[in-house]
Amino acid sequence: MADADVPTLVEQARQGRPRAVARLISLIEGDSPRLREVMAALAPLAQGAYVVGVTGSPGVGKSTSTSALVSAYRRAGKRVGVLAVDPSSPFSGGALLGDRIRMSEHASDPGVYIRSMATRGHLGGLAWAAPQAIRVLDVAGCDVVIVETVGVGQSEVEIAAQADTTMVLLAPGMGDGIQAAKAGILEIGDVYVVNKADREGADATARELNHMLGLGEARAPGDWRPPIVKTVAARGEGTDEVVQALEKHRAWMEEHGVLAERRMRRAAGEVETIAVTALRARIGDLHGDRRLGALAERVVAGELDPYAAADELVAGVTERAAGA
Amino acid sequence: MADADVPTLVEQARQGRPRAVARLISLIEGDSPRLREVMAALAPLAQGAYVVGVTGSPGVGKSTSTSALVSAYRRAGKRVGVLAVDPSSPFSGGALLGDRIRMSEHASDPGVYIRSMATRGHLGGLAWAAPQAIRVLDVAGCDVVIVETVGVGQSEVEIAAQADTTMVLLAPGMGDGIQAAKAGILEIGDVYVVNKADREGADATARELNHMLGLGEARAPGDWRPPIVKTVAARGEGTDEVVQALEKHRAWMEEHGVLAERRMRRAAGEVETIAVTALRARIGDLHGDRRLGALAERVVAGELDPYAAADELVAGVTERAAGA
Repeated sequence: MADADVPTLVEQARQGRPRAVARLISLIEGDSPRLREVMAALAPLAQGAYVVGVTGSPGVGKSTSTSALVSAYRRAGKRVGVLAVDPSSPFSGGALLGDRIRMSEHASDPGVYIRSMATRGHLGGLAWAAPQAIRVLDVAGCDVVIVETVGVGQSEVEIAAQADTTMVLLAPGMGDGIQAAKAGILEIGDVYVVNKADREGADATARELNHMLGLGEARAPGDWRPPIVKTVAARGEGTDEVVQALEKHRAWMEEHGVLAERRMRRAAGEVETIAVTALRARIGDLHGDRRLGALAERVVAGELDPYAAADELVAGVTERAAGA
Repeated sequence: MADADVPTLVEQARQGRPRAVARLISLIEGDSPRLREVMAALAPLAQGAYVVGVTGSPGVGKSTSTSALVSAYRRAGKRVGVLAVDPSSPFSGGALLGDRIRMSEHASDPGVYIRSMATRGHLGGLAWAAPQAIRVLDVAGCDVVIVETVGVGQSEVEIAAQADTTMVLLAPGMGDGIQAAKAGILEIGDVYVVNKADREGADATARELNHMLGLGEARAPGDWRPPIVKTVAARGEGTDEVVQALEKHRAWMEEHGVLAERRMRRAAGEVETIAVTALRARIGDLHGDRRLGALAERVVAGELDPYAAADELVAGVTERAAGA
């Protein structure tokens, strides 16, 4: 389509027009030259949508659970955005036909935006794009933005860190306890869900999780104790309890100043990443200048140690900055 | 022990004294203030040891293979350094007693240095320390330095990238093909070893690997075609063939200028990492100044978009640099 200018797209997105929302997210994903313009236009329009991260190993039923969660929030009259950064998600087009059909009910609902983000290419780019896509969905009037990620790998954990509340899904009989511990998932969950709770081993999984999380131990008053909710998402069972657990966590965060603190930390991390990337790009320019290559040559030859070489590189970056 | 000064330690390391070697690596690992002094002293003494990376999933027999490789190089009269960055390695103290006993034969050999590097703490620190530890072993007169890593996770792959030749180990019947593909291991191997080749499925694993590597396809003349060697490392079977494959790869790299190119690229990466870390540290100082916090607050409030905030941060870094 012929492209509208950024102010027009942002105004259309604010009115909730899906094509403008999609177009803005594409601009962000593509690292468009207009990215900065988009971000500047979005900033003053921020609404502060509640961001829920949904993560878990492949096969635990993330997309089915996300779909059930969307339905529950829709029943409560909320507008919902879904950002799927999961290569196996039906949103991303890679999963079972059954799931895809199940999700398509939301595709025709004007109160729901669904967007998949490609995990092809380097993941750093994705962790970078996700918070900006969340901003677009926020400006488009979403009360809740659900970010669905596969719970494996550092980058996905970083994306989960973009959420206000992180919900970790497990399923019985997948050796998830150990897998979860490996992926560091036990450190990031605010709410745990044992899905497929009609299967054998669901109670054992919940018990193991309870034990691993140390939920039996005493905590300071006011500390958050992650609840463990059992669901059968495919039949919508337990979804209302999940929403209650999420809203309880949100209320707890607001009461204790944790929500403001998390959002501050998130913004700080984002600003820092952009700044470091900008500085790294300047080194990259030097790379193009062959300055880095020349320094590396001297390091290999033993004429220079890597620290002394790095000093020259840093000096080059800041000289350039002074000259710019 | 009372600490000798850096020039004395470096001179003792150059003479091959194990305690000085160990002490220098500890200084590097600990990110000591004397790190820069150590690196500056080592640079002119570089010998250009041949660095072999050994990687593979847990259970494929990495430490047994490394031990067999050490024996083979020792028989050829070479001095060998081993850097084990593998939490499950007997060098790191976390594995089977049988393996540990098998390795202890080298512990009393003055021509072998064995050093484990902790993977506790953040892995970035390890990827950082490994190339510098390699330099110490090089200066200590090692002809060959073997870097043993677990082949899972991005950081380990980065460590493998520190090697001149990367040897990827697999074992039959572990579903390694798929695991290997996931971990990106198929892109990094120069030499592949199917260990435990006396077990059922060894031929199938080699065939699958051959297929996945596309070894049946035509290549340009002069291209390197990664060999697949079958071994039973526990009995020393196939180890001589592994050494031949490694030396063949080394000769090919030298003939085609690949060795010099890899070392250049490695040095460039190292210098760049140190420079980016230095720039990031300056942002960290600003963080301490609460400047980043103040910017993040304005981003959360919608007064500033993250790019504009990052611009201010970058300006702060370069101002400081100009002022320093």
